Amino acid sequence: MAERTKYILDEADMPTRWYNVVPDLPEPPPPPLHPGTREPVGPDDLAPLFPQALIAQEVSTERYIDIPDEVLDVYRLWRPSPLFRARRLEKALGTPARIYYKYEGVSPVGSHKPNTAVPQAFYNAAEGVTRLTTETGAGQWGSALAFASATFGLECEVWQVRASYDQKPYRKLMMETFGAKVHPSPSELTESGRAILAADPDSTGSLGIAISEAVEQAAQAENTRYALGSVLNHVLLHQTIIGEEALKQFELAGDTPDVLVGCTGGGSNFGGLAFPFLREKLAGRMDPVIRAVEPAACPTLTRGKYAYDFGDTAGLTPLLKMHTLGHDFIPDPIHAGGLRYHGMSPLISHIYELGLIDAIAIGQEDCFAAGVRFARTEGIIPAPEPTHALAACIQEALRCKETGEEKVILTALCGHAHLDLPAYGAYLAGNISDHALPDEALEKSLAGLP
Amino acid sequence: MAERTKYILDEADMPTRWYNVVPDLPEPPPPPLHPGTREPVGPDDLAPLFPQALIAQEVSTERYIDIPDEVLDVYRLWRPSPLFRARRLEKALGTPARIYYKYEGVSPVGSHKPNTAVPQAFYNAAEGVTRLTTETGAGQWGSALAFASATFGLECEVWQVRASYDQKPYRKLMMETFGAKVHPSPSELTESGRAILAADPDSTGSLGIAISEAVEQAAQAENTRYALGSVLNHVLLHQTIIGEEALKQFELAGDTPDVLVGCTGGGSNFGGLAFPFLREKLAGRMDPVIRAVEPAACPTLTRGKYAYDFGDTAGLTPLLKMHTLGHDFIPDPIHAGGLRYHGMSPLISHIYELGLIDAIAIGQEDCFAAGVRFARTEGIIPAPEPTHALAACIQEALRCKETGEEKVILTALCGHAHLDLPAYGAYLAGNISDHALPDEALEKSLAGLP
Repeated sequence: MAERTKYILDEADMPTRWYNVVPDLPEPPPPPLHPGTREPVGPDDLAPLFPQALIAQEVSTERYIDIPDEVLDVYRLWRPSPLFRARRLEKALGTPARIYYKYEGVSPVGSHKPNTAVPQAFYNAAEGVTRLTTETGAGQWGSALAFASATFGLECEVWQVRASYDQKPYRKLMMETFGAKVHPSPSELTESGRAILAADPDSTGSLGIAISEAVEQAAQAENTRYALGSVLNHVLLHQTIIGEEALKQFELAGDTPDVLVGCTGGGSNFGGLAFPFLREKLAGRMDPVIRAVEPAACPTLTRGKYAYDFGDTAGLTPLLKMHTLGHDFIPDPIHAGGLRYHGMSPLISHIYELGLIDAIAIGQEDCFAAGVRFARTEGIIPAPEPTHALAACIQEALRCKETGEEKVILTALCGHAHLDLPAYGAYLAGNISDHALPDEALEKSLAGLP
Repeated sequence: MAERTKYILDEADMPTRWYNVVPDLPEPPPPPLHPGTREPVGPDDLAPLFPQALIAQEVSTERYIDIPDEVLDVYRLWRPSPLFRARRLEKALGTPARIYYKYEGVSPVGSHKPNTAVPQAFYNAAEGVTRLTTETGAGQWGSALAFASATFGLECEVWQVRASYDQKPYRKLMMETFGAKVHPSPSELTESGRAILAADPDSTGSLGIAISEAVEQAAQAENTRYALGSVLNHVLLHQTIIGEEALKQFELAGDTPDVLVGCTGGGSNFGGLAFPFLREKLAGRMDPVIRAVEPAACPTLTRGKYAYDFGDTAGLTPLLKMHTLGHDFIPDPIHAGGLRYHGMSPLISHIYELGLIDAIAIGQEDCFAAGVRFARTEGIIPAPEPTHALAACIQEALRCKETGEEKVILTALCGHAHLDLPAYGAYLAGNISDHALPDEALEKSLAGLP
């Protein structure tokens, strides 16, 4: 029998608790502020948007939170997800490094997003909510919430960034097949959308605008709440099942990571993998370098400002202390739609400020080159988002080739590219450029900070 | 803990042999004939098209054939595949039936096709072949062979039915990302293609025409062989890993199927699931009804003729005794591209003639209704092909609801619909009709039989 390439947990060994990194940090993250009073927001401020259970998780200082049975029951459709050793990629690179990837593309919608969509839909349904609103860029999050809403019998209404709505019809069709309603954003359905369209009738939208529309609807309509696919503490909490599983799988593999890399947009994929390993690091049980990888076109951690900013464009959300490019920022239309958010999870921003993780930015061309290399060796075509992490993985593995170090590298392959194949088509046709964010554009956008 | 919905085998329990049903049948299937002499073809006739190892498997009378380690090693990227109990669908139907589905969408390309693409690429590479040619309709098979070819370092050249090439660019992009070359068929690159284009410059092609082109290329070019994704004995042999796994998983579930349904195009998904269960049935260890489900627009088993016919349109292949609509048949452009072949696996045709399986045909509307119902309950959007089997499953489950029978139903969910979402879009928009094959069209096509 050949050497193992895949590590699967028994269902019985699937984690039954999410991990909250907050109580293990040397200091707590700065709280969200009310934009009027600039006082910390309380549960009452958030109640129009989220159910009580999620608000409690958002501010929890408990280290572990039990996963409800109803959520575990849905997770079992695709979890535990596999951990792979990328032996074919290692061989192709000629590296002495050992590369592992945790693969979340096995979920029904092909990404890690259902890990939080399912509990969010569950808690809302349990509190009598009948309709969820949300935003989506390329559509990974929207389709995850559409799937989760169908599972718990909720209506689901999605504002999709117009650029993606027009150019990537497959995700919209997936959401509709699950029974969701999808609107291009900016739309005429909300005040926020109408204001944007009045200023620019041809606006192709942004995540920030779409969030404004979904939040506005949730705040106004009956039995309706809002669901966010990244950024917030409770979202990252739900994603920690990725890292908890990976820790158990590393035990099966008899190995320990030296370097952990994950792509960051809002931070949920990265946090989901990294936080359980950060706990181990803080406890002195292992000492991995933990590295966030972001697109050069939207370099929140590496070039953004650590400041209080709105989560959305219209300024309807609380102020979040985070690395931000400014809430007016509209990124170049790079293909990694999930990494185009102007801000970064406040929790990850705080952890970065504490010096517990590092961050790099990579351009699109290197990312797609890594994606094609990975597809032709490992057989899975990675979504554009995780190609950023794979590019960083390959950088590290090639450094090991030079130094002879047998480093153990772990990355999160948070989704496949079945619905992003035109991006690969553009790359193969030579129509991809790097789009690093120009200094002037950054300065202009940061000037809009509150 | 909730009741189990997923049955996963340990990698160590993955079958290491394929099952050949031929020696267990009451009489052997009629042999392929040379179209000139009408004598049974020998290995030498097939050598320009296939490597020796596959020719040996095609005519083997051994009950079991060992799966090479190199193939097992690639299978492990996604196998063993899960068996699911469809508890949410059962509940939505209110049926006392227990519905199980074996899910092959977990493969890198999202279907069961890599189960045979991988061994075909392996055996070719092992015999020094450097390039494979093939045809593909919607592209499931082409992308599977592109993936397998990348894995074993082979060039891969695919003739894709023009209708799909034009309308479904995602599959082409997937093939290209894996490094394959894709041509629309009919093409100017082959004599067969040029002949079709001379007669009809606007031809949108058919699987039969694309096979002619790929076969012609393989027969003429150096170190080049042809690979077929269904129909032939060795292809169905490789797919039996599906049924062998499912048998073991039913042991885990402590259940036995009463009814087994699978969709049939060329027959590889159906045969792969059904043959190991047929072995058990013939040995008297269980007694499931085994049912093939085909589209009403391409009703090979239910309305075709059991006769010797060509596998392709130009008449380059041996004559195969099979249920056929005539090799000139060009089906209506229904969305289940994988079920539009004019013929049927000779082995399945023979088994049908022996009365060991039954067959029904279902129209597109019922199939998509079943697909949407399945997506919104079970969370997986099924490819258009297996919606045929799901529609039959639901029929049976609703009969059980009337009679109160607690039947155990097993179906093969051979792929997901990520690359077929426009078909769901058409259904949701009310633009799907049933397209049952008219009698006149059938008569005209059968008249062309040799």
